[in-house]
Amino acid sequence: MNTTVTRADFGLPVAPARGALRPLSIGDVRIAGGYWGHKQTVNGTVSIRHAEEWIEKVGWIGNFDAAVEGRLPQDHTGRSFADSDVYKLMEAMAWEIGRTGDAGMERRLQALVARIAPAQEEDGYINTYFGRPGQGARYSDLEWGHELYSFGHLIQAGIARGRTHGEDELVRIARRAADHVCEAFGENGLQGVCGHPEIEVALAEFARYTGDRKYLDQALRFIERRGHGTLGQIEFGQSYFQDDQPVRDAKVMTGHSVRALYLAAAAVDAAVDTGDGELLDGMIEQVANTVARRTYLTGGMGAHHEGESFGVDYELPPDRAYSETCAGVGSIMVNYRLLLATGEAKYADLIERTLFNVVAASPAEDGRSFFYTNTLHQREQGQEPSATEPSPRASSSLRAPWFEVSCCPTNVARTLSSLGALLATTTDNGVQLHQYAASGISARLADGSPVVLRVETDYPRSGGIRIVVEETGAAAWELSLRIPAWAGDDARLACAGESYDAAPGTARISRTFSPGDVVELELPVQPRWTFPDPRIDAVRGAAAVERGPVVMCVESTDLHGHDVNGVRVDTSAPLLDEEGAASVQVRFGQFDDGTWPYGACARAQEDTEPASGERVKLIPYASWANRGPSTMRVWMPTA
Amino acid sequence: MNTTVTRADFGLPVAPARGALRPLSIGDVRIAGGYWGHKQTVNGTVSIRHAEEWIEKVGWIGNFDAAVEGRLPQDHTGRSFADSDVYKLMEAMAWEIGRTGDAGMERRLQALVARIAPAQEEDGYINTYFGRPGQGARYSDLEWGHELYSFGHLIQAGIARGRTHGEDELVRIARRAADHVCEAFGENGLQGVCGHPEIEVALAEFARYTGDRKYLDQALRFIERRGHGTLGQIEFGQSYFQDDQPVRDAKVMTGHSVRALYLAAAAVDAAVDTGDGELLDGMIEQVANTVARRTYLTGGMGAHHEGESFGVDYELPPDRAYSETCAGVGSIMVNYRLLLATGEAKYADLIERTLFNVVAASPAEDGRSFFYTNTLHQREQGQEPSATEPSPRASSSLRAPWFEVSCCPTNVARTLSSLGALLATTTDNGVQLHQYAASGISARLADGSPVVLRVETDYPRSGGIRIVVEETGAAAWELSLRIPAWAGDDARLACAGESYDAAPGTARISRTFSPGDVVELELPVQPRWTFPDPRIDAVRGAAAVERGPVVMCVESTDLHGHDVNGVRVDTSAPLLDEEGAASVQVRFGQFDDGTWPYGACARAQEDTEPASGERVKLIPYASWANRGPSTMRVWMPTA
Repeated sequence: MNTTVTRADFGLPVAPARGALRPLSIGDVRIAGGYWGHKQTVNGTVSIRHAEEWIEKVGWIGNFDAAVEGRLPQDHTGRSFADSDVYKLMEAMAWEIGRTGDAGMERRLQALVARIAPAQEEDGYINTYFGRPGQGARYSDLEWGHELYSFGHLIQAGIARGRTHGEDELVRIARRAADHVCEAFGENGLQGVCGHPEIEVALAEFARYTGDRKYLDQALRFIERRGHGTLGQIEFGQSYFQDDQPVRDAKVMTGHSVRALYLAAAAVDAAVDTGDGELLDGMIEQVANTVARRTYLTGGMGAHHEGESFGVDYELPPDRAYSETCAGVGSIMVNYRLLLATGEAKYADLIERTLFNVVAASPAEDGRSFFYTNTLHQREQGQEPSATEPSPRASSSLRAPWFEVSCCPTNVARTLSSLGALLATTTDNGVQLHQYAASGISARLADGSPVVLRVETDYPRSGGIRIVVEETGAAAWELSLRIPAWAGDDARLACAGESYDAAPGTARISRTFSPGDVVELELPVQPRWTFPDPRIDAVRGAAAVERGPVVMCVESTDLHGHDVNGVRVDTSAPLLDEEGAASVQVRFGQFDDGTWPYGACARAQEDTEPASGERVKLIPYASWANRGPSTMRVWMPTA
Repeated sequence: MNTTVTRADFGLPVAPARGALRPLSIGDVRIAGGYWGHKQTVNGTVSIRHAEEWIEKVGWIGNFDAAVEGRLPQDHTGRSFADSDVYKLMEAMAWEIGRTGDAGMERRLQALVARIAPAQEEDGYINTYFGRPGQGARYSDLEWGHELYSFGHLIQAGIARGRTHGEDELVRIARRAADHVCEAFGENGLQGVCGHPEIEVALAEFARYTGDRKYLDQALRFIERRGHGTLGQIEFGQSYFQDDQPVRDAKVMTGHSVRALYLAAAAVDAAVDTGDGELLDGMIEQVANTVARRTYLTGGMGAHHEGESFGVDYELPPDRAYSETCAGVGSIMVNYRLLLATGEAKYADLIERTLFNVVAASPAEDGRSFFYTNTLHQREQGQEPSATEPSPRASSSLRAPWFEVSCCPTNVARTLSSLGALLATTTDNGVQLHQYAASGISARLADGSPVVLRVETDYPRSGGIRIVVEETGAAAWELSLRIPAWAGDDARLACAGESYDAAPGTARISRTFSPGDVVELELPVQPRWTFPDPRIDAVRGAAAVERGPVVMCVESTDLHGHDVNGVRVDTSAPLLDEEGAASVQVRFGQFDDGTWPYGACARAQEDTEPASGERVKLIPYASWANRGPSTMRVWMPTA
């Protein structure tokens, strides 16, 4: 990170004007090995480069060259919003460079910026798909064209760059784009909104970055304009893009999941920065209802492939879970903002769940292919996706190296490269740990005294977390630790021989610390059975296994020739095998291949192998499909 | 019907060159009141007129006027295949006029023909969406343009007209179109196929109608060309339009359901008329696997909203059942052809199920609104669709008067107006009854002797069916009656005091009959519990009630303020109430509105009202949503 620049928001992905907690930056919180350290390394050394190569290969960065060289529209490749993936990649690179100082990546980012810059027009407009002879006119297709969405990602890239490096060409491009949007869609401009929210959250953050209220005002305009049938009629209905009712009136999320979540993130930002408590309360309720009724065990959101959308309450089919990777990222965006605003542990609980079971699930172990959707039940082995051509976006059976709409790989990349900020926060007189990872954490309290912590853990492999106080002032302060809801009564917390309350929520140790003090948190990470709400019809009579924050699954690769559809589990048998690994006692259903699958006898067509059965290994859901085509399920029917 | 014309295929929707059974025409089988008589009357007097009005109102017939007057493309309304709905309406009108001799409808049909005719070009091409300056070129979008699909429906209308009236302008238009297709896509023409099968089944039937083999050859060309990646790459994948593998190699239906079913119908026609036993066997297997693994209890097909497509085996979510009405029609087309080819009762079983639970479900009781999709579980009350504007096609909560893609209303109309043909068939020395309805049936055996039967029944209200022999020759012949699989061992069959075997399948009475003889069949139509194959995860732990061929459901309208999601049924309690009506003993789940819908205890969040519960009325699934917005479910969780 360019340490010659000192800004209050340096290294911060999100910097609200106020809130219960203050964010720490990616410089303040440094992940050091372990589960997330490994993911960050693979992301930084493999996945980002992989995305650069694909964006070159499929011509999406080349679209900017074509724009400059007057070869548009004929040489345009990709969808109307292909620009946005270039910008999201640039955002990821900016955070990664900030995190690691990678000089090669710095040169490559500058090269990308140099190719984009000349495509920006005099008035700040930049888009390779609209506005030229033979293309659609600017803003002629707000429903599907995604011009403002693309600007939003450009602005986010500019913010990332400005907050890790300082003002440069990318920041200036972003500023000109943001100014253009304010001009074109301001009070006296077009009274439209973008079919895909994103510009709102970008402008709200750009207002924070620049200190210029006009960008927040424009974000507010977009938020308030939406929900009144502002966009045109489309077949999916106006709820698809949250244009059926104002976001402040919505009691639960509907429509396209990523759109709903990006809009919600912007609404929280706007509520916080303008002090609009009513809007904030509304968003808290909307998120609470969505989490309670429309969220998968993995934290995934979006039950419908059609429209990539939320289902209705408790409609959560595991085998048709859309659970788009980008919706996981969007959920983390929303929940992180609500965590900062309220300080409530439940938001960090959901972030943890979503990180381990959606964000971590998307990239393959080698970082070179990705899930776009994240099904909880793969009934049939899929086909290997093309290694050389972009895949359709919803092919969920195996990870693909690139997609025709490739929003997810770059969204994961920017999330992982800025992950540190999610781990901890500070207040005037305290430090809060929300996510547990081997890391170093630096904060400064209101009285100017430093707090430096070293977190030692191989969580979630084991549940032991040691927090070593490396620096501290002499005065008392409060160390807060999130106790996950899933820990029940089984978490243990101690410091200097003294035990502390570790009930789910926030555990607090308020005392004077000395360098070398150790706080020890033990979270119960032995495997446990989890059962669904009986209103979720699609998984009635089934159970899942979780292990700490990790959702487990059974994969056919471990089933000695069986597929997962016949698995029947015994929930009374132990969940650990003799080696202490997570496993379940299963039988395999024997089915009669009849002519009509409905009959007069319950389970008439099912017989199962003797109850002795066999033990079957469970693996983390996020790890599935790393061993070739397979079938997989999270929810296992009980015998 | 124009009785001055005598053709062997007069009044026959389908006239195969050979087969186990010979079809009877809509003149030979006259439905007389009862369940289907009422449906036919509503269709003929209300729904067809309703469709005529909407096709006028939304401008789809006006597109032809615009073509003639040179106002295209600017005045075109509707989708690229809007023409096809005009043609399907004309087909329905032709059958209806043939059935009833409705003189007013005859004038209106001729008026429609007169508006279409001048839009046909010199070479037989006719389409209002392609081929003019400013429009796409002819056949420039075979994937989505549906030009050949539209021709197929035009040809079907011509066949219906020719077989109920005789050669006239509509038949000539159809012939010129068919000739054009053979020319344009023949051996030396374009080597393409249509994204949506339909031309194949139309040309195969047109070959039968004209006796000209060239149309069958062209149908075969389309069938054989398909399945080799002939069409372009689309996001849904090539299986969407059955272009991933030849239809003769497919072991089960995949992709868009209506496309798969129309193609299958054509493949059966081609197999039968060319004597291709291998292809016929392949289609028999493909249909058997589809019925056994990918079909809803209602007979509905298509588990995915996305792509309107089949799911994988046993993926049959009730709350996201697409089960398009047109797929029900397509399934009847396929199963009727296989019934004629093989004589096996199972095909008539599925036709019955699909008629009572898909085709009958689509139109509202008043015949003025329609389901496009047929969900088996409506979780939330829907909104009333627009009475004045076309609705999106997949809005399944309430029937809509018209759709932006309005294939279903006209598909139901043509099915109901030609329904008689599905009821009975003949062989050299026998008559077979497949569907039971109050009706008169006339056949002539190979020896020239007549068989005239009168069927008296109010089936499915009661299970008693009286078949009165009105005319018969002196020689013995065989009366065959389908005994539905659902009847189990409980069907009873008697004639002249003698009992006959009535096991599921085909019951045969082979004897000499005299006028006045009565055959009495009693089918068990008391309500019965039905349970799903345990591989259908989505309805595990739930049961449904059927009554004869009728699938029942519970609708919130009958639940005194409860919605259906809390219903828990006791499958050990009787299914009849004191008045003898179908009803179930239910409890209503009391749910804790928690914050996270997964937990450590099975059903921890569920409590139910005392076991005494209450009795709740069941209604036929096909009747739901006739009493305003409601919730509904077919599969009820067991207590």
